[in-house]
Amino acid sequence: MTTWNFSSGPAILPRSVVEKAAAAVLDFKGSGIGVLECSHRSKIYEPVVASAQARLRKLMGISDDYGVIFVQGGASQQFAQVPMNLLAATDMADYTDTGTWASKAIKEAKLFGKINVVASTKEEDGTYRSLPGMLLLTPGSKYLHITSNNTIFGTQWHEFPAAKVPLVADMSSDICSRVVDVSKFGVIYAGAQKNLGPSGVTVVIVRKDLLGKTDRQIPTMLDYRTHIENGSMFNTPPAFGIFVLDLVLEWMEEQGGVEGIQKLNDAKAAKLYAEIDRNPLFKGTVDVDVRSRMNVCFVTEKKEHEELFMKLGKSRGFVDFNGHRSVGGFRASIYNAMPEAGVDAMIEAMKDLEKTHG
Amino acid sequence: MTTWNFSSGPAILPRSVVEKAAAAVLDFKGSGIGVLECSHRSKIYEPVVASAQARLRKLMGISDDYGVIFVQGGASQQFAQVPMNLLAATDMADYTDTGTWASKAIKEAKLFGKINVVASTKEEDGTYRSLPGMLLLTPGSKYLHITSNNTIFGTQWHEFPAAKVPLVADMSSDICSRVVDVSKFGVIYAGAQKNLGPSGVTVVIVRKDLLGKTDRQIPTMLDYRTHIENGSMFNTPPAFGIFVLDLVLEWMEEQGGVEGIQKLNDAKAAKLYAEIDRNPLFKGTVDVDVRSRMNVCFVTEKKEHEELFMKLGKSRGFVDFNGHRSVGGFRASIYNAMPEAGVDAMIEAMKDLEKTHG
Repeated sequence: MTTWNFSSGPAILPRSVVEKAAAAVLDFKGSGIGVLECSHRSKIYEPVVASAQARLRKLMGISDDYGVIFVQGGASQQFAQVPMNLLAATDMADYTDTGTWASKAIKEAKLFGKINVVASTKEEDGTYRSLPGMLLLTPGSKYLHITSNNTIFGTQWHEFPAAKVPLVADMSSDICSRVVDVSKFGVIYAGAQKNLGPSGVTVVIVRKDLLGKTDRQIPTMLDYRTHIENGSMFNTPPAFGIFVLDLVLEWMEEQGGVEGIQKLNDAKAAKLYAEIDRNPLFKGTVDVDVRSRMNVCFVTEKKEHEELFMKLGKSRGFVDFNGHRSVGGFRASIYNAMPEAGVDAMIEAMKDLEKTHG
Repeated sequence: MTTWNFSSGPAILPRSVVEKAAAAVLDFKGSGIGVLECSHRSKIYEPVVASAQARLRKLMGISDDYGVIFVQGGASQQFAQVPMNLLAATDMADYTDTGTWASKAIKEAKLFGKINVVASTKEEDGTYRSLPGMLLLTPGSKYLHITSNNTIFGTQWHEFPAAKVPLVADMSSDICSRVVDVSKFGVIYAGAQKNLGPSGVTVVIVRKDLLGKTDRQIPTMLDYRTHIENGSMFNTPPAFGIFVLDLVLEWMEEQGGVEGIQKLNDAKAAKLYAEIDRNPLFKGTVDVDVRSRMNVCFVTEKKEHEELFMKLGKSRGFVDFNGHRSVGGFRASIYNAMPEAGVDAMIEAMKDLEKTHG
């Protein structure tokens, strides 16, 4: 039976990448040693880091005004590291509260500057199902922070807010899933474990002229400049994770780059939402205009159908398609590496539940 | 030809571990999805983290007074994180300067408290080849920091300094290579990429009663308590790295635990140093009584033999056996996973150089 991995992260990777990664664990480029065992300064490994950086720059259209670094600690560490690097203690920044991760970013930022929450779409029950409309930004604010895609609730900014200040975005769950004008951003950061690779690597894209303007003494490892100046090789990097990232980026190139992948993603999401809207047994959980093309959240109209669909999905090889515990129901995470056939399998199961229980 | 990987890190792993890791990348426990693609909260992955913690506790004899956590950023991030978590701004700590990494630890610690360098073995040329004798510790100091094994120069504390305060040790390059009385330590930290697994995972063992005594507001991800309370699952951990770590620890159990491995390590190091001392073409680079059993550094007596031995070693499948650029010559890193046959191959090459050029 084919397995369909709808995990929200760590998530499905292209099969060709997985096979190349497994082979390299056994023997890296015919060297006789595996990629896990290879010095990061060796002639065979070191070019991998530069390659991943170059590919990402090209795929996303990142200019030389930006540093592109591969660090550790996930987006959760970036919640603190971004304001630590960008804000002096007396500086202000605007944040939007659109989900669990956005609210964690706000909490950490408050340790480093004056943080204005310019909009929150939190519901009374603690969940989120919409995104803010027009934002009233604070004059003098240094940046506006957004979470481009809210993994848990399944909402996504389809158009980024207009702001005179640079945007700072947690793009963990939709980086490289669609074309983005990087020049609008001061910082883009993303844990790799959804669209880019395994967990343990964090991509940070940062406009270099924003750095060095706090009076704060930043620990060397937490200072973005350290990693920009050292090409992400100041200390031993998460070498295997960067290797897999490079393979994923190579695969993206083969798919026609971000443009090509966006078309596939749009088609996959459109057909799944169409079924959710058509099928009387199911309904979506968020406002239609902010539906995520990465994490498609839905519930059954009738409570008794929930367990039935869970059983049906499992019998068809669906993995991790349950909704987050704070939302319930179902979540189909359909990242770049999820083939259209996986979405078709989900739609077929929904149709079949309708036939038997509609 | 057999390849002998003498890399100082990332370094050789047991072959059985490498094979299991590669297989799991393709299919994790028959789930139909690979370990890189598996949710860290899934029923098949989540037990791995608890397993690695339990194994390490048993192998090292770590009591419940300690938290054992798996974090990211390497020892370099710990250089800041240790004092951030342990020292109030007015607190003092004693540090020993015994190598490149020790001196980096000192630099970062100075951001967080008053740091006394109680001993330095730095030579006039910037290298290190000895360890301090008796230490004069500072009354009122909160801890004494040491680097248990200096990877670059090849020195190792065979007996830890006696101190009334807890020791804090960077054990990146000799953790689990020998029996250690953990109860003497306040914190032990180690990047995994030498004796424990791939790069991208950092092990921190911390005495819980030392935490929460600074008045500092610590970012959530940098606060040891976050990871202790959440079993290293506050956010997405470096899941594959912890998986490989667990496999390495299982392998260590099969070798008779740390006791068994120490015996093998002592034997490997003894025979290699014996050849260095016996062979008139070679000499060691550090004081005999502090020679590292992990990183065996040596040079040729005559400069013209250096290139010859480099060629000879390469022709016999030796990888990364050159000394660090600041030392020159040769460095055979013979971590836990290096079989005795690898050491024998090095010795044989030394003998053969003597035969042809002695």
